[in-house]
Amino acid sequence: MSTAIQKQLESVFQRVAHLEHAMTYLGWDQMVMMPPAGLENRAAAMAELASLRHTALTSPELVDWFDALSAETESEAGLTEHASLREMKRVWQAETVLPADLVAARIVAGARCEQAWRDQRFANDWQGFLANFTEVVALAREEAKCRQAAAPDITPTPYDALLALHCAGDSADRIDAVFSVLKNALPELLDQVVGKQQSEPLPNCEGHFQTADQQALNHVLMRVLGFDFNAGRLDVSMHPFSTGERGDSRITTRFKDTEFTEALLATAHETGHASYEAGLPDEWQGLPVGQSRNMCIHESQSLLFEKHIAQSKPFLEALMPRIHEHLSATRHLNADGLWRSLTRVRPSFIRVEADEITYPLHVSLRYDIERALINGDLQPKEIPDAWDVAMQSLLGLSTGDQHHHGCLQDVHWSDGTFGYFPSYTMGAVNAAQLMATLRQTYPDWQTQLAAGDVTFIREWLRTTIWQQGGLLESQPLMEHATGESSNPQHLLDHLRLRYLEQAW
Amino acid sequence: MSTAIQKQLESVFQRVAHLEHAMTYLGWDQMVMMPPAGLENRAAAMAELASLRHTALTSPELVDWFDALSAETESEAGLTEHASLREMKRVWQAETVLPADLVAARIVAGARCEQAWRDQRFANDWQGFLANFTEVVALAREEAKCRQAAAPDITPTPYDALLALHCAGDSADRIDAVFSVLKNALPELLDQVVGKQQSEPLPNCEGHFQTADQQALNHVLMRVLGFDFNAGRLDVSMHPFSTGERGDSRITTRFKDTEFTEALLATAHETGHASYEAGLPDEWQGLPVGQSRNMCIHESQSLLFEKHIAQSKPFLEALMPRIHEHLSATRHLNADGLWRSLTRVRPSFIRVEADEITYPLHVSLRYDIERALINGDLQPKEIPDAWDVAMQSLLGLSTGDQHHHGCLQDVHWSDGTFGYFPSYTMGAVNAAQLMATLRQTYPDWQTQLAAGDVTFIREWLRTTIWQQGGLLESQPLMEHATGESSNPQHLLDHLRLRYLEQAW
Repeated sequence: MSTAIQKQLESVFQRVAHLEHAMTYLGWDQMVMMPPAGLENRAAAMAELASLRHTALTSPELVDWFDALSAETESEAGLTEHASLREMKRVWQAETVLPADLVAARIVAGARCEQAWRDQRFANDWQGFLANFTEVVALAREEAKCRQAAAPDITPTPYDALLALHCAGDSADRIDAVFSVLKNALPELLDQVVGKQQSEPLPNCEGHFQTADQQALNHVLMRVLGFDFNAGRLDVSMHPFSTGERGDSRITTRFKDTEFTEALLATAHETGHASYEAGLPDEWQGLPVGQSRNMCIHESQSLLFEKHIAQSKPFLEALMPRIHEHLSATRHLNADGLWRSLTRVRPSFIRVEADEITYPLHVSLRYDIERALINGDLQPKEIPDAWDVAMQSLLGLSTGDQHHHGCLQDVHWSDGTFGYFPSYTMGAVNAAQLMATLRQTYPDWQTQLAAGDVTFIREWLRTTIWQQGGLLESQPLMEHATGESSNPQHLLDHLRLRYLEQAW
Repeated sequence: MSTAIQKQLESVFQRVAHLEHAMTYLGWDQMVMMPPAGLENRAAAMAELASLRHTALTSPELVDWFDALSAETESEAGLTEHASLREMKRVWQAETVLPADLVAARIVAGARCEQAWRDQRFANDWQGFLANFTEVVALAREEAKCRQAAAPDITPTPYDALLALHCAGDSADRIDAVFSVLKNALPELLDQVVGKQQSEPLPNCEGHFQTADQQALNHVLMRVLGFDFNAGRLDVSMHPFSTGERGDSRITTRFKDTEFTEALLATAHETGHASYEAGLPDEWQGLPVGQSRNMCIHESQSLLFEKHIAQSKPFLEALMPRIHEHLSATRHLNADGLWRSLTRVRPSFIRVEADEITYPLHVSLRYDIERALINGDLQPKEIPDAWDVAMQSLLGLSTGDQHHHGCLQDVHWSDGTFGYFPSYTMGAVNAAQLMATLRQTYPDWQTQLAAGDVTFIREWLRTTIWQQGGLLESQPLMEHATGESSNPQHLLDHLRLRYLEQAW
């Protein structure tokens, strides 16, 4: 009986997955292919698909089915069935718990604020932004309270309830603990590294690079990293991103005429995201339990590919001849020079340009502010001061009233996305921790990377992370893979070894 | 009251249009962008969207709404409302009239036969093809009878009922009359032209042409023809096609290394299709009455752009400097030489390679066969003989048992698409007729084309054809635009003037 209900439930989610497939690739098309005049019809079609998805998930029989299945214990259901049910329920609750008028109000306020932000950012117009943003925050607080009330046991604060949309399973308490270690250690490490690097020469990576040549080089990099072009594509978009599903990964990068490393690292990063999606288990295709764990794990895969593989000394040794081959203007550069250029550390105002050491501090600052904002401990108008104080304390820089270099720089908050920022740094922590286990498991890892062979890493990740889908919650998944839950010490160890001892 | 019902009905069709939007662009993606491994998930998503569309159109209240509105007379409803209702009903009947098991059987048999045909064609395996095709024909006959029974007044024969899916409003009687004139006149004209051209030198259009250079030239051609790149794209696919909707036209072409005219004419052709779609009326967006009339009109737009604009002497004069500019290997060629190369006539076995004079004969042959096949006057196994006899009589060529150059060459029948072929020649007839009116209306048409200006043609088509959408049936539309219904004499006049008198 309960198996029959579970099957019915799963067939609803399979149909939902088909609608999500349509939205995924139409969304990609919109970012990469669609001409501007297509926007109006595309928006109407996307809204229709979202509405059909919502209708499928709010079908009244789902309530009865979830009720009937919730009565069972884990041992009755079996581990996989239990996890599948838990993940379906998570998706269902996230979709159905908000009143329709709140959903509509959020979308309208978020779209208005985000649209205006595009100009306000460049105009440094904090007051103009605040006029729209105040309502965005008010609605996000209401959303957070609603979501928290639906699952008070696992989301003790309103902020936890928004966090759960992106970092499911990783609580604010755990993230607090991680950031507290990093905030304590990183400013001092930053001083040491900047002091050390002052006396080191900085090789020049600039030159003139044709897009077609860079494209060919990025294809080479993707192949070396194990990307299957029979099951995916590389394209160009304003901001690099990764989307798609198993069988059809779509990643993008962007090319500059005068600099080639930014595109290359973005491509490595997105290849990590795509590899995770491509490695998800076949047998749960279309079910929530077959999807990636959360953004803290997702970002660990992209950062492992970008920071621990592509940016490592041995891998750059392997890649350098291919770089020379495709970009003749790099012939004066050797692997060591490129590595030194890629590991240059410098405190700056802009998160997306930040290096491995300062990035977690940028994120920590945003995390503290958004948590206080959603929990009601900080008001929108107080953000610029909070931002400036934190920047001075963590990075030694004052934003003053240059808000376009401060709290106006990111798109996230403008449309009401709160609880996403911490995944960047949880991802960095998890990546360093996974890599630490990889180094122990494969003591010859540098030899393999120097031979341009990443198969051992892909196979280990496939087994420990990718094939797990959403079977385990994120911390049990990290324990399964590394023997312990997310521990920032591994990131600190990596940063000290790379930046002070130049180990890799 | 009736207005309220019409509004409800239209809102169902608006939602259907959103699903069709999704299927259109996912279909384009599948042909142009999708990697092979994406097929399985894409097929599942497309089936889901088709099923949601079917569900929306088979909703029981539609029967009542159509019944209520059908009771009204045309004068009560107003011309536009009446046409809108008529077109909604057409779409609704086409979607709902077949029993579900017949629909499923057709899809399975068609997919199986088409899949096997891909190899059987190259293997010249008629017997293998016949084994699958017999069932395809049996099911198509059943479909035709079903559809005919639902609208016996406008589809007097089963074949008419399949014709109505592509050439709505143009009956088999009318098409018979058109082909009878053409079959009577074209073989003699063909002999005259071939005889005349034997003594004329044939300039060489071959050379080595870079894809990027051809791409740039094709973009130039599209801009000259009035294509708006703010509302559309040009891409590459195995077979050129045009899809999309107002605001977002997607056309494709294909490039050869050694020949540039095929891509150029394909681009002109698809630009004609796209211009029609882009010019459809704003105010009926998403409604059947706002869509293109039928394939006989659609093909007239593509052929007018390809044959009457791009392939005309004055336009080639205007384009030649741009061709020289982008393709240096054409510098030895002048506009007259290019025109003579593009207007070379030669009977051949393959429809898609045929010239303006022989093409209608290829289509006429297929039309006669498929009409007899669906009406039960010819059996599948009799096709090769019928083909050979007609080829000999119309084109003076015998296919014998070379079926890959005969009845196995086209994809259409393999998946059960009958009633489409005549639109190619009805399109050619309509194009020549529209152009005859244009020549009368704008006596300086050659001067304008020689200046590379097609605005007068676009504006005239916009008013007379594009902005009409599906308001008028196809013959009243032709009468509205040209003063008479489809008349093959205009095509014959055009062919005589172009090929015997070298007028344009």
